[in-house]
Parts: sequence; structure tokens; C-alpha cells
Amino acid sequence: MWYETRVSKLLSIQYPIILGPFGGGLSNVNLTAAISNAGGLGSFGANPFSPADIKATIAKIRELTDKPFAINLWIPLPGEETQPFSHAEFDANLKLLQPYLDKFDLPAPTYPERFSEKYEDQLDAVLEAAPPVFSFVFGIPSAEAVKELKKRGIKTIGCATTVEEAVATEAAGIDLIVASGSDAGGHRPSFLRSQEESLTGTFSLIPQIASTVHIPVIAAGGVADGRGVVAALALGAEAVQVGTRFLACDESGASEGHKAQLVSESARYTALTRSFTGRYARGIRNGFIEEMKSVEALVPPYPIQNWFTQPIRRAAMRAGQSDYMSLWAGQAAALSKRQSAAESFANLVTETEQVLSSLSR
Amino acid sequence: MWYETRVSKLLSIQYPIILGPFGGGLSNVNLTAAISNAGGLGSFGANPFSPADIKATIAKIRELTDKPFAINLWIPLPGEETQPFSHAEFDANLKLLQPYLDKFDLPAPTYPERFSEKYEDQLDAVLEAAPPVFSFVFGIPSAEAVKELKKRGIKTIGCATTVEEAVATEAAGIDLIVASGSDAGGHRPSFLRSQEESLTGTFSLIPQIASTVHIPVIAAGGVADGRGVVAALALGAEAVQVGTRFLACDESGASEGHKAQLVSESARYTALTRSFTGRYARGIRNGFIEEMKSVEALVPPYPIQNWFTQPIRRAAMRAGQSDYMSLWAGQAAALSKRQSAAESFANLVTETEQVLSSLSR
Repeated sequence: MWYETRVSKLLSIQYPIILGPFGGGLSNVNLTAAISNAGGLGSFGANPFSPADIKATIAKIRELTDKPFAINLWIPLPGEETQPFSHAEFDANLKLLQPYLDKFDLPAPTYPERFSEKYEDQLDAVLEAAPPVFSFVFGIPSAEAVKELKKRGIKTIGCATTVEEAVATEAAGIDLIVASGSDAGGHRPSFLRSQEESLTGTFSLIPQIASTVHIPVIAAGGVADGRGVVAALALGAEAVQVGTRFLACDESGASEGHKAQLVSESARYTALTRSFTGRYARGIRNGFIEEMKSVEALVPPYPIQNWFTQPIRRAAMRAGQSDYMSLWAGQAAALSKRQSAAESFANLVTETEQVLSSLSR
Repeated sequence: MWYETRVSKLLSIQYPIILGPFGGGLSNVNLTAAISNAGGLGSFGANPFSPADIKATIAKIRELTDKPFAINLWIPLPGEETQPFSHAEFDANLKLLQPYLDKFDLPAPTYPERFSEKYEDQLDAVLEAAPPVFSFVFGIPSAEAVKELKKRGIKTIGCATTVEEAVATEAAGIDLIVASGSDAGGHRPSFLRSQEESLTGTFSLIPQIASTVHIPVIAAGGVADGRGVVAALALGAEAVQVGTRFLACDESGASEGHKAQLVSESARYTALTRSFTGRYARGIRNGFIEEMKSVEALVPPYPIQNWFTQPIRRAAMRAGQSDYMSLWAGQAAALSKRQSAAESFANLVTETEQVLSSLSR
């Protein structure tokens, strides 16, 4: 059967369909558990969370499902956690964003102790709580960390946007690799080459990675219906990672405004922007992206810009003003529907079987 | 059977596999005829040709095959043929390119009567010689032209990089539509929105276009082996257009240096650049692309820049200096092999059948 691949066997799941690990607060334990309970692998993006919140989240997911699930973290790029950012630079960036703070009556932030949670502490929390699967983006955990993960029986999923990232991930002893094509929504998790060199489309990336590595490949980027699942399998993947389709589901952490945009025709036109977080990410074009375009070169790197815009984006969500939210979306977003996660998942399986049967006629 | 689609029926070909219509002198009548003789649809990109050369080319292809084939033209974007370009601008651009002219001992060009052949005259030649199929990029022929094409029984194939371009093409009465994802090599034939808004990956673009139009869809961009053919069919296409794989074949008009690059690992890293022709096109990163990056904003539009760089690129081809050629390549180029066209085509059919049979297990 199409769903009996090395990925479904290794992860002990029925269907090789993995929920995209939404970062930045879009994950929701109910969505994670719903996908796992439906026979896929639910994921939870814990990158903005403190160690204590990571442990609490894992405990909560365990209450909601006894099936496997994944916790996802962002690995800092070299030098990222110690990059200098002066108070003068802080003030300059504040000035740039002041109109947006004013728009939502937000107080000016003051220079913080840190701009993000500490990855090493987050990883310790993951090791301690030992979820069935640990997935990560923007790099590869240290050899020591990989050893500790293996010791605890935690399966590992890396992420590559180029063939050489996949090769490096396999060499580090990681179990599975997500091949994330440029069609994908949200952050581009490239870590070895420039953004510009790491924008290979899903259609082209999957077969090149599948032809090069020996570990099973999970296709990500534009997989939004049964046609995409079958295409991914044809291209050499043994599983799919589905983000946007499930982000549009009732249980996801996206706002109503974001979900409404995802299923609309405006989702056909996405952009890659650094303006929200300091790292390139794909979202539906909106006012903030357009307005910031001329000053994008001034935007400080992640996690600094992410820290600056977070209160603005949250206020925009509360106010239902989609022009100032980060409307993360993959390039096939417009194929999504508003549904419950269980319904969406079951439909995806049915669609896949229909496409397979029409192909074999 | 997988190959009995509306496309193969409408075009009277055995396999729904279409040769990409290489522009700028990369097409070769032997390659066009070889693909048609193998059971696909050979294409010939006649955009740089005079009306007389177009008629002679069509006559030559008819000597080499009695199977259907396509002639491809570039439709001028609005205002493109009448855009002002002063002698001062001419001199400024000449200065920018002088180092490259010097490198190959080329004389400084003088302001020409025209920077390109006249599309209306080229179209008249096509109507007169009446090839079995006329394909085009960068727009849609006028209603009058479409009527004349139909009157002569010439089948028509348009090209879309967005859903709305596909909808407009269908509304004009065109028979078939190529959905060209951003994975594709060579020129991005967008004509309704900005380049930035028209860069949807093949994986995401095909199903959205297939779900919207009623005419059959031909998938283009990254289709380089049997996995790609099956994936395209799964995504809703009824044919594929294969460029780079066939460009690497013995019979293609690409230089030996270009072909050697296509089958190498450097083909994994392509770039979109305006520097060669004034229009965005995808090629393997090389010296010219890197060196021109800082002045790309100064590059005049097509066809002016194309006219300027043509002698440089031709001299580089003769000298075997791939750093100054336009190494057009799709994002799956590295999956290509050096083969004869007949061998490559037959292998593609075999690969497709193997992938289909492995999927139905």
C-alpha cells in the first residue's frame, strides 16, 4: 500500500503524512494531537517557548493523544545568539517600526536581556520530556545532542533546502530528512548557502535529494491535496509534510483573519520577506510586506527583528487587521479549505487514493 | 494508458512529451525532428529568426520528420517594440559591457535600425508556412491572429506562470496551456504581473491551473526524468514540457561547455538574472551573472540588452568560456545526462513506466 513506507514504519504511524511544525505561536496542541490521532504525525513548533513551556506542552499533547508526535526547535545559525546589537541600532530600528506601534497603541519596548529563548536550554527540556520525535530546522544538532537523543529513543527529523544540506544532515546520523522546496510557506530554513542559492522548487528538489541520500525523504512545500501527495511519492519521497492545508483547519493557532486569507485567491500571490522576523519567510502579500520593502535592507537579523515585530503582529491578530500580521502561506495555499483537522486529514487520504487509482487506469 | 491524454490526442502524438522551445539560437532542427520522430512533440524556438529563416527552418524540419512539431515565437510585451532608447543610453550601456567586448576582441556595435526581428512579420511567416503547432510565450496573440491560426488548422499552445495568465489564455481560444513553474530554465514568460509575483514553483502551480482552466495543462519546470513525468500527471497535467534534459542531448544547439555544465553538480545552483537579455531568465550561476549583479538595475530591457550581449555570448561559446555564456538551465538540470535525443526520449518513457508500476504496487 502507498502508505507503507520507511517513514511510516520508522515513526510507527499509519499514514506518512506529517503536520508542518509551525513556529511563532501558530502551533496548537489540539491540532498536533488531532493529526496524530488521525494516523499522521502531529508536530508542534516550540521555538518561541521557554523550557518550562516546552515541557508543559509535551505533557499536554500526551494527555490528548497516545500516538507519536514531534516537537520542533530552531537551531541558531553560527554567531546568531551572540551577535552585537547596539543601543543605537535598537533605537534606529524602533524608529522604523514606530508607526506600527502607534497604529496599535503599543508602548515602545526597552532593550531586553535576550531577544529569544536559549536553544541549549530548550533542547535540554526536549531531552528531559523525551517526545517520540524531535524535528529541527536551520541546522543540525551537535554530535553530543544527537547521541543524547538516540539514547532516549527519540527519532530525529532534519530539514534541507539543498542537496548539500541533506547530505550533511544524513552524515550527522539523523533518521529522516524533510526536503523543503521554495514553494513552502513560512521560514526558509537554509543553513549552508545564501537564501538566493537555496530557493529550489519542490518539484526539482525532491528527486535530487532522494537520488543522493539513503535516509528516507519527506517532501515539503506545496503539498496541499491528494495530487501533491502522489506527486511527492512519484518524485521519490516516502512521506509528505503538510503545512498550509492544516494551518487553515479549525484547531490551528492561526487567527481567523489569517485562515480566511489562506483559502482566498489572494493566497495565490505570496512573497519572501525578511521584514517580519529578520529571516526570509513566505507569506501572503500584505501592507506590511509592501511598506517595508524599501527598507528591508535595514531590518536587523533574526531573532532581533522577530522580537521587535511580535507585539505588532499579535496586536494586529487581536484587531483582525491582516495587513499587519505575518500571513505565512505556501504557494499552494489557495487549494486549502476551512475544515476540522480530522476532516481535512481523512479527505487528504481519500484524495490520495483517488489520484493513485486514476493514475493506474 | 498513461500516455493517452487529451494532449496526445489533440496533437496526434504518441507520448504527451513536448520539447521545450529553446530561444536564442539553442534550438536545432535535428533535435526538434528527433523528438517528433521518437513520438513526442519537437519544438523549435524561432524568436531570433527573420521571416525568411523561419520559413526555411519549417521546410527543413519537414524534410527530417513527417510527424507534428511546433514553432515557438515570443510575443512583444506592451510598448516593448516602440520603447525609447536614446543614443546616450546606448553609449552608457556600451561602456558597461566594454570589458566583455574587449575580453573577446569584439568591435563596439553601432546603434541599429532595430534591436530584434518584428513579431508581426515572424507571425506572418508562421501563418504562411503553417506548421502543425504554434506555441508562444510572453502573451497571447491577437484575436485576429488566433482566427488565422485556426483557419489554417494550426494547433496553439500558450504559456502561463500564474493562474490568471492561464485563464486569459484559455479565454482567447488557445488549445493548450503550458504551466511554467519557477523551477523552469531560461526565460520566465510572465506577462500579467511582476516577475516577483509570478514565481510559483511547478509543484504548486500545476494543480492550481489544472483546477481552474478546462483546456489541458502541460507541466513545465523541473521535469527531468520519469519521476517528474508521473508527478506532473498526478498534479493534474496531461503532458509535460521537457527542456533542460533535452538541451543536454547531442543534437541540441547548446555548446559543449553548456552541456558539460548541465550534467554537473554546479547545475544545482541556478540564478534568475536580467543581465543577459533584459528579461528574467534562469541559468547556472557563472562569472557574468555574479559580476553584473551590482549593476543589474542599469541593464536596459529586452530586446535591447539581448542585442548587446549576443555577440559576447557567441564569442564565449566559440572560445569555450562558460563564464560568459548564458547557461540556461532548469532547477532539476543536474538530473540530466549526455545522450542522443532518441536514447534520452526512450529512457524517459521507460523511466515513466517504471515509476508508474512502482506506485501501483
